[in-house]
Amino acid sequence: MKPKVVLAYSGGLDTSVAIKWLGETYGYDVITVALDVGEGKDLAFVQEKALKVGAVESIVLDVREEFAERFLKPALKANAMYEGKYPLATALSRPLIAEKLVEVAEARGAVAVAHGCTGKGNDQVRFDVAVAALNPNLQVIAPVREWGMSRDEEIAYAERHNIPVSANLDNPFSVDQNLWGRSCECGVLEDPWNAPPEAAFEWTKALADTPDEPAVIELTFEKGVPTELDGVAMPFYEMIARLNQLAGAHGVGRIDHVENRLVGIKSREVYECPATITLLTAHKELEFLTHTRDITRFKPIVEQKWSELIYDGLWFSPLKQALDAFIEETQQHVSGKVRLALFKGQVTVLGRTSPSSLYDEKLATYSKDDLFDHTAAVGFIKLWGLPTNIYASVHRGEGTHGQQIVERKIHQVDASVGGGI
Amino acid sequence: MKPKVVLAYSGGLDTSVAIKWLGETYGYDVITVALDVGEGKDLAFVQEKALKVGAVESIVLDVREEFAERFLKPALKANAMYEGKYPLATALSRPLIAEKLVEVAEARGAVAVAHGCTGKGNDQVRFDVAVAALNPNLQVIAPVREWGMSRDEEIAYAERHNIPVSANLDNPFSVDQNLWGRSCECGVLEDPWNAPPEAAFEWTKALADTPDEPAVIELTFEKGVPTELDGVAMPFYEMIARLNQLAGAHGVGRIDHVENRLVGIKSREVYECPATITLLTAHKELEFLTHTRDITRFKPIVEQKWSELIYDGLWFSPLKQALDAFIEETQQHVSGKVRLALFKGQVTVLGRTSPSSLYDEKLATYSKDDLFDHTAAVGFIKLWGLPTNIYASVHRGEGTHGQQIVERKIHQVDASVGGGI
Amino acid sequence: MKPKVVLAYSGGLDTSVAIKWLGETYGYDVITVALDVGEGKDLAFVQEKALKVGAVESIVLDVREEFAERFLKPALKANAMYEGKYPLATALSRPLIAEKLVEVAEARGAVAVAHGCTGKGNDQVRFDVAVAALNPNLQVIAPVREWGMSRDEEIAYAERHNIPVSANLDNPFSVDQNLWGRSCECGVLEDPWNAPPEAAFEWTKALADTPDEPAVIELTFEKGVPTELDGVAMPFYEMIARLNQLAGAHGVGRIDHVENRLVGIKSREVYECPATITLLTAHKELEFLTHTRDITRFKPIVEQKWSELIYDGLWFSPLKQALDAFIEETQQHVSGKVRLALFKGQVTVLGRTSPSSLYDEKLATYSKDDLFDHTAAVGFIKLWGLPTNIYASVHRGEGTHGQQIVERKIHQVDASVGGGI
Amino acid sequence: MKPKVVLAYSGGLDTSVAIKWLGETYGYDVITVALDVGEGKDLAFVQEKALKVGAVESIVLDVREEFAERFLKPALKANAMYEGKYPLATALSRPLIAEKLVEVAEARGAVAVAHGCTGKGNDQVRFDVAVAALNPNLQVIAPVREWGMSRDEEIAYAERHNIPVSANLDNPFSVDQNLWGRSCECGVLEDPWNAPPEAAFEWTKALADTPDEPAVIELTFEKGVPTELDGVAMPFYEMIARLNQLAGAHGVGRIDHVENRLVGIKSREVYECPATITLLTAHKELEFLTHTRDITRFKPIVEQKWSELIYDGLWFSPLKQALDAFIEETQQHVSGKVRLALFKGQVTVLGRTSPSSLYDEKLATYSKDDLFDHTAAVGFIKLWGLPTNIYASVHRGEGTHGQQIVERKIHQVDASVGGGI
Repeated sequence: MKPKVVLAYSGGLDTSVAIKWLGETYGYDVITVALDVGEGKDLAFVQEKALKVGAVESIVLDVREEFAERFLKPALKANAMYEGKYPLATALSRPLIAEKLVEVAEARGAVAVAHGCTGKGNDQVRFDVAVAALNPNLQVIAPVREWGMSRDEEIAYAERHNIPVSANLDNPFSVDQNLWGRSCECGVLEDPWNAPPEAAFEWTKALADTPDEPAVIELTFEKGVPTELDGVAMPFYEMIARLNQLAGAHGVGRIDHVENRLVGIKSREVYECPATITLLTAHKELEFLTHTRDITRFKPIVEQKWSELIYDGLWFSPLKQALDAFIEETQQHVSGKVRLALFKGQVTVLGRTSPSSLYDEKLATYSKDDLFDHTAAVGFIKLWGLPTNIYASVHRGEGTHGQQIVERKIHQVDASVGGGI
Repeated sequence: MKPKVVLAYSGGLDTSVAIKWLGETYGYDVITVALDVGEGKDLAFVQEKALKVGAVESIVLDVREEFAERFLKPALKANAMYEGKYPLATALSRPLIAEKLVEVAEARGAVAVAHGCTGKGNDQVRFDVAVAALNPNLQVIAPVREWGMSRDEEIAYAERHNIPVSANLDNPFSVDQNLWGRSCECGVLEDPWNAPPEAAFEWTKALADTPDEPAVIELTFEKGVPTELDGVAMPFYEMIARLNQLAGAHGVGRIDHVENRLVGIKSREVYECPATITLLTAHKELEFLTHTRDITRFKPIVEQKWSELIYDGLWFSPLKQALDAFIEETQQHVSGKVRLALFKGQVTVLGRTSPSSLYDEKLATYSKDDLFDHTAAVGFIKLWGLPTNIYASVHRGEGTHGQQIVERKIHQVDASVGGGI
Repeated sequence: MKPKVVLAYSGGLDTSVAIKWLGETYGYDVITVALDVGEGKDLAFVQEKALKVGAVESIVLDVREEFAERFLKPALKANAMYEGKYPLATALSRPLIAEKLVEVAEARGAVAVAHGCTGKGNDQVRFDVAVAALNPNLQVIAPVREWGMSRDEEIAYAERHNIPVSANLDNPFSVDQNLWGRSCECGVLEDPWNAPPEAAFEWTKALADTPDEPAVIELTFEKGVPTELDGVAMPFYEMIARLNQLAGAHGVGRIDHVENRLVGIKSREVYECPATITLLTAHKELEFLTHTRDITRFKPIVEQKWSELIYDGLWFSPLKQALDAFIEETQQHVSGKVRLALFKGQVTVLGRTSPSSLYDEKLATYSKDDLFDHTAAVGFIKLWGLPTNIYASVHRGEGTHGQQIVERKIHQVDASVGGGI
Repeated sequence: MKPKVVLAYSGGLDTSVAIKWLGETYGYDVITVALDVGEGKDLAFVQEKALKVGAVESIVLDVREEFAERFLKPALKANAMYEGKYPLATALSRPLIAEKLVEVAEARGAVAVAHGCTGKGNDQVRFDVAVAALNPNLQVIAPVREWGMSRDEEIAYAERHNIPVSANLDNPFSVDQNLWGRSCECGVLEDPWNAPPEAAFEWTKALADTPDEPAVIELTFEKGVPTELDGVAMPFYEMIARLNQLAGAHGVGRIDHVENRLVGIKSREVYECPATITLLTAHKELEFLTHTRDITRFKPIVEQKWSELIYDGLWFSPLKQALDAFIEETQQHVSGKVRLALFKGQVTVLGRTSPSSLYDEKLATYSKDDLFDHTAAVGFIKLWGLPTNIYASVHRGEGTHGQQIVERKIHQVDASVGGGI
């Protein structure tokens, strides 16, 4: 009996060729695993194709709910956004896929897992590191990184082995998608001076084609996660799918980014994340209402680190777990409702309310109902400004703006006056 | 001869009443200073009104250029955004106004300066701290904070002293504006569940009323600051004014925020910052193109601290100077061009290019021209993931996700499989 | 029946005078609460004295264990050290004392609590903020801050009211102490150029008087907290007391600091923390052994924020709870043993070991047993250095060190050569 | 004529063997460069040895002053300390050595540079990245990383090629040293439970052997760098050498660390840094006296990042330059004097004074001269605690400590009371 390898299978050319190549090169029997993380894949077709090409077993798994519960909820709580622009859609799916590969490998007694990543992207890091963290005894093979075939050679190889070469080979872009978003790269996008053509987008309408009336929605949150859309409770993964439709129709969620890859280069990526942008906007609004100032100022540092870890392939790291503990604690009171308009590519908050709101109209108001103690401010300012003022006293007349200040010429004021008396 | 106080004068009810009140309460002669920071004020009218009400001297200063050069350029380089939402327009003007008050006070031998802030806002802190930093010998008076008059009492006081009470007293909002943005608070905005009414906006068109064609513009940057708009060089303050018109017409720059004030409460603010949002978007794009990954990851921490300092009234602090030194150093290569579309409330980057671009198509491309060394990735990943992997080996089978992983049941996989062979 | 106030009572002059003063000024019956937080106070004496001076009830509480469990364990896990120098001993006791004041006030139906802090220290902030967080309905009175008596007036007041004025009034220092440390300020210490006199120290021997043989101890940790000293299990508060003796005898734990108070001034403080310094040293060593690099690099940011919050009186804040959640998560594997020498004022780690050690001799060794893959380094370095190298390529010859590098003169090398061939 | 390689030469076995090996393996003529960075090397001997072994040119350079001025001054200003324990001595020398290799290579028209690093240390990264940053056209060769010889094979190779094998081959440790410190690893140190034997130390006396009288010294600083030792001006590199003697004699500067290497493993290192620890202690004291609270709280974040960059081999990176700009700005007023005792392994500050001191005795004192406004504190505390208090009001009775607080049982107090009335 041959040793087995479990291959993450998409149904596309690369991983189809890999089925054959793994057999030829390593002498392994190939078990394929195709996961549905919400990209709208035809799983039955994919399952069958793997077998046709030569897999000894073809497994398909619908992991949309698990993906949403275990990966997307934490990302939402963390307001995850790499470099302030990319919501990490692909990055979040990799540790889940790696986990499933390992599970299947262990269940089937395989000696290796394989994935279709190239040698210059982030995903290879995410797969390799995750698999090693989960089961260091498994060999990890990345056929595309190893085989060194050009596109033409690969097609020739496929034809030689009766691997169906699908029609959409002409797709000028390289695409990945799941519930949390769609990414698109390559082709004309490789010149960052080029605007992305409409063909690069699939989930979002161009602004010119969006409705002329906003869609107004209401999201209900419980401890940092949305539980209802317009008063209707639904599983998170369904809500995301629904919002992708709804917000995408209004052109919400297009992102065009020149980003820093972990492997040291910059790449130009175009993303579509209608649901994600909608949910992040709403979530942040509720945080502004329910978080103290100190948390509002510190959580971004945790969020940034969280986002970098996920981008860098470190989902299964103890720092990630510790950051999660911090974030989870901050979500205890992030409950309430947010009303939003989806319109012409924008998510606009219309209102937010929470039983845990720290906004106190009685303290904030400028009306007669004001309860704020205005006299307290004098003492506050005195001590708040004291370090600056001691510094200024010590350094008065010493240069930099000290000098500027002290040597200001009197006539300068007169000169610049439009006309004093 | 009476001692003199220099009052920051807006022409409105509060500071007009303050002219009289300062004379009555402190026995001071009042010199008013009205500054044009780009809010489109009628300076001649304001100047005359102060004298009518009783000022002994009425000074008006056009400081738009100084404001743009000394305050807005650093804010742009810092991508300044308090709590990720507020570009600090009002906060940035306060230290400049404080400086001018001090200059005039020194030039005229005044013993005090005065401003119209209440006791619950941020601006009182900014004025008081800045004045004390610039000249600790000057008394700072905040009549509105002191006098304890209700709105009605204040109007009665004004009428008693023949102070003209302007017609727009019915304005339901409290507004401040300068080149960098317009803020609006109070009234129906005090309930954060209420959407801001159109009346709260003045600089930006409602999306429904914006043109159906995008405006496409090109901004040229030199070391972090824009020097040309569509190829035409112009002073920064003029460019800002131009962009406020242009982007405002397309509905760009509306912000609705529940923010944490320095004085300890939350307040709900509505901002309009068409030029600012446009410029920040363009500036960040050029930074993504020209900054290394390390700077992209660290500068946000500096930016956040910078923004907090300015919000908190610490413009004249040595930490602010040190942060500026960091930021300035990062701007040396932020030069190039950004092409943007202004359309339906959005600024969309269409392209960016720079002689200092660190994006290297030869390394990024997936075409045949690829120069990236794919084999390097294997060694990289091995060492990059090593700490995680050592940790995983040591803690395998110990609980948390360790446990989950190890105890995964084999049949779980089988069960969830849509159908293996 | 008069309304009641609960006063934090130390037995000293200030709080003894406050008993009378609170009655006279506010017309309140005074209940005193004296807490033992490990300072070695004679509680029976203190209890009796309060009654003699006029308290209607005198409560004493031994809270050493609670203090150690609920406040010092988190501080140790956080490696808490304000400004890298002060382990926060006094700061950590304040929220506990405030809590006990509030508990007694609620149990006895009091309307107010009182403490003996002045108006320029940090402790007033810690008490006032903590009480308001725990029960906003309680009035907080700080007699010393209010009464405005000079030292001489206070003594006269005491004599007038038959309040015993203790002999140690001549103590030139102001002292506070508890299990976690002893602080000493005032007098000659107020000039930071003066070395602290021996009289400022009580818990630690001068180096000249310490034994000439080190004490070697072994601490066993379980999830971040020490459970055994030299193999003997004991409650944490007892271990601290024991270590204060042991390490103090060897002169360990003297700290001399010019620190930034929350109220805006700098003060000069001398601390003695023998147990604390010993425990922190050991705890950190075990963290170095059991934490991944990522945690080693990020936890200090959390630790610094934690320390600042505690110093600034924000123990009862939600940010503190969230930071605790992070820290707690990082302590799961901080278990093992540390062997230390206490000698001549120093704590020297001699060895550390842990079942969760991430140090792997097989990877670290330079002997034949080396398992590290040396070839992986080449690929790692290539990608690790790539951003820097791309930057260098783009900016070669452009100035700063770029210029330096390119314009290096050849003969400079020759000239500086001691003698080539 | 053969192509040339410039080899960093130490005179030891590895680099001596490398001279031959580079000729044999690459066919290059070898030019050696030996640098004196303060390790007390016999340069004449080293120079001659290289030629004997077969170098075509042997260059020696005394770079102690350049090292101190360009690398150690910035490190001192940055209070550089990797993981809070290692002052980066070796790490700081690598970019300088790399620079000299590149300079010589360019001067001599060499095609490659070479260094003696192994494949599992940090230094290979520092060399490779620095050389590529300085001149990407130069090949970098690391013979020891490549050749795969065991120690025995290497000795056999040496004997075969008449390369003198020095007597101290039996040294059980691997050592590197320069002005800023000495590092020692390997052998018995590889077990972190073993205490370092005395043989591991060379620069510092064991405490038992140190004088029984402290040495008291005074350091004068100008803008963050020391200019005088006991009132005598001297170049920085000489002061460091002097302090290494002086403080080493008192046992100052031993460090025992289990650290995280960039290549992903932990290693156990023993350092001796007598001068460095002395200078860092003094420098920080002066910073505490002259920095505002805001800088005291933010600079550590910059310092940590700076230290990590240097450790990670990124001296020649733009982020490092930007951090330097921040740090430099903070040093403008770090001038004054620090008096220190060196005694029994410890550096104890005795006093510090500065014309730029922000410590103000008039504000800090508890004597009659107190100028601090005690009444300001009340208002300050009110607003400082406001966010916490609003939070507490909203969440009173809701659980976590909220619950604890509210549900405290009255009798609990009574029970624990030692005896009320």
